Amino acid sequence: MNKWIIGVDIGGTTTKIGLFDLKGNLAEKWIITTRTENKGEGILEDIKVSILNKLNGVGINRVNVEGIGFGVPGPVLKDGTVVRCVNLGWDVINVKKEFEELAGIPTKVGNDANIAALGEMWQGSGKGYQNIVMLTLGTGVGGGIVVNGNIVPGLHGAAGEIGHIQVNDKEEAFCNCGGKGCLEQYASATAVARNASKYFEDHDTSSSVLNNHKVITAKDICDAARNGDHIAEKILENAAEQLGKAMAHIAKVIDPEIFLIGGGMSYAGQILLEKIEKYYKKYAFHASYDSKILQAALGNDAGIYGAAKLAVL
Amino acid sequence: MNKWIIGVDIGGTTTKIGLFDLKGNLAEKWIITTRTENKGEGILEDIKVSILNKLNGVGINRVNVEGIGFGVPGPVLKDGTVVRCVNLGWDVINVKKEFEELAGIPTKVGNDANIAALGEMWQGSGKGYQNIVMLTLGTGVGGGIVVNGNIVPGLHGAAGEIGHIQVNDKEEAFCNCGGKGCLEQYASATAVARNASKYFEDHDTSSSVLNNHKVITAKDICDAARNGDHIAEKILENAAEQLGKAMAHIAKVIDPEIFLIGGGMSYAGQILLEKIEKYYKKYAFHASYDSKILQAALGNDAGIYGAAKLAVL
Repeated sequence: MNKWIIGVDIGGTTTKIGLFDLKGNLAEKWIITTRTENKGEGILEDIKVSILNKLNGVGINRVNVEGIGFGVPGPVLKDGTVVRCVNLGWDVINVKKEFEELAGIPTKVGNDANIAALGEMWQGSGKGYQNIVMLTLGTGVGGGIVVNGNIVPGLHGAAGEIGHIQVNDKEEAFCNCGGKGCLEQYASATAVARNASKYFEDHDTSSSVLNNHKVITAKDICDAARNGDHIAEKILENAAEQLGKAMAHIAKVIDPEIFLIGGGMSYAGQILLEKIEKYYKKYAFHASYDSKILQAALGNDAGIYGAAKLAVL
Repeated sequence: MNKWIIGVDIGGTTTKIGLFDLKGNLAEKWIITTRTENKGEGILEDIKVSILNKLNGVGINRVNVEGIGFGVPGPVLKDGTVVRCVNLGWDVINVKKEFEELAGIPTKVGNDANIAALGEMWQGSGKGYQNIVMLTLGTGVGGGIVVNGNIVPGLHGAAGEIGHIQVNDKEEAFCNCGGKGCLEQYASATAVARNASKYFEDHDTSSSVLNNHKVITAKDICDAARNGDHIAEKILENAAEQLGKAMAHIAKVIDPEIFLIGGGMSYAGQILLEKIEKYYKKYAFHASYDSKILQAALGNDAGIYGAAKLAVL
């Protein structure tokens, strides 16, 4: 009888669910709405119902599911407790315990950025490595840390909060975290779009980006940079310098085998990777000068892959 | 029959050796000269001879030694290879393989700063913890990283090179590593002494430290600060700010259970720890605001404890 594992990636709007065999082949993938109303009290029940319906539909008995893993957008403690997951409406909830009681399937829980790193290690750009740092450049800058093949959650669930490493002590604007000069203020997709708009406001200049868009998105900047727009390149350069500096800090702590760049900004591709590498080398300790920096491979599916892998770690 | 383990801490001048029982009780401790001449080719042979003599003297058969661990002042790769250990005269040498061939005792090798962290975890201030960052404030600033009870060496043996985290991007003086603004330039004993001398040269001021010493050492500054000398306190404050900032960076990567402060500078005691904690809180991510910061307990013996523990990990 075949055995199966399930990966669940809970986001603030939708929840992605993947059904995998033990080798990491994705058999089924589907999406349900995340109902965050009433402090998100229906989220786990919805997931249980959806999974049991799916297993029923494809003819899999739930006893053949070896485990289920969850990725959640917030700090997760060792015992599977999620602490104040604002995007889901949750306060403090032991997801492992509650879901095991609901569904009777062994459950593990991790932070979504850590889970994405695990997914890339299992079936993505991190295949073959055991020590990985993944940076997810999206609305914010998320970080996933894998040491010796295991996620590092940290005492307070705050390992991998690399978006809040201070990279500029002259910054005057506040970050969401209350700090000033955090990596996230320069290298998230949100920040790149904001900094681009500010650049065009402050400078009397022409650019293909400015000419064609009323609202500038990070994707516009990435596309324009790939097409040789110098101003867009300059804006990416600033993000890349702060990323390279923070990655050099990280390497001086855990010296990983590989850095992976994922999230929306990573679609800028080679042009962004080359700039990050240039600045990484500028700030790196000499012994770690040649660390590998690669683009993540699984895109938005990294979460379900990683959650499934976590289930059987 | 009792079983034993041996920890060896090789320094550029002397090598410390400790004989332990499996519970971590130190039975014998002795020191030999480290002969670094001829590319340090006699170092391992000297250690073997000294250990076999000692075992003979106390009536222990070498088959009852479960293992021997080495701490060395340089980068160590996973297989026990030490890469260019300048202080010992070594180029590239697989210490594990060579010593096992010499002495016929199972051997493990680690970087001295990592080993010290392991020693504190076993029998010092880190007892009961599995996730530790230790900062050794001596000639330089060394870092030891323990995750899930194991040393993190890093791909290039460069994990824990936290003395070279850049904390001041306005610094004009170079660090030994070739960078500028490294933590080590502010927080090592060497740096504190140098910065104190510079302060007194630049300022027309009186201080008990200045009045009583021609050459100012870090110990003088620590002693004076403990006795309420405001200038000495100010000099420590600067070191503490950079330490707190770097430790906040580190917590955003691995969020350890505990930070330990060791090395010569740690003898400043509570006055230094309080200042470090103040600045750590200033820069920390909110979730990790209350991380524990303690003084290391084993002093110069941390290395032999950690090396012995490594032998049986």
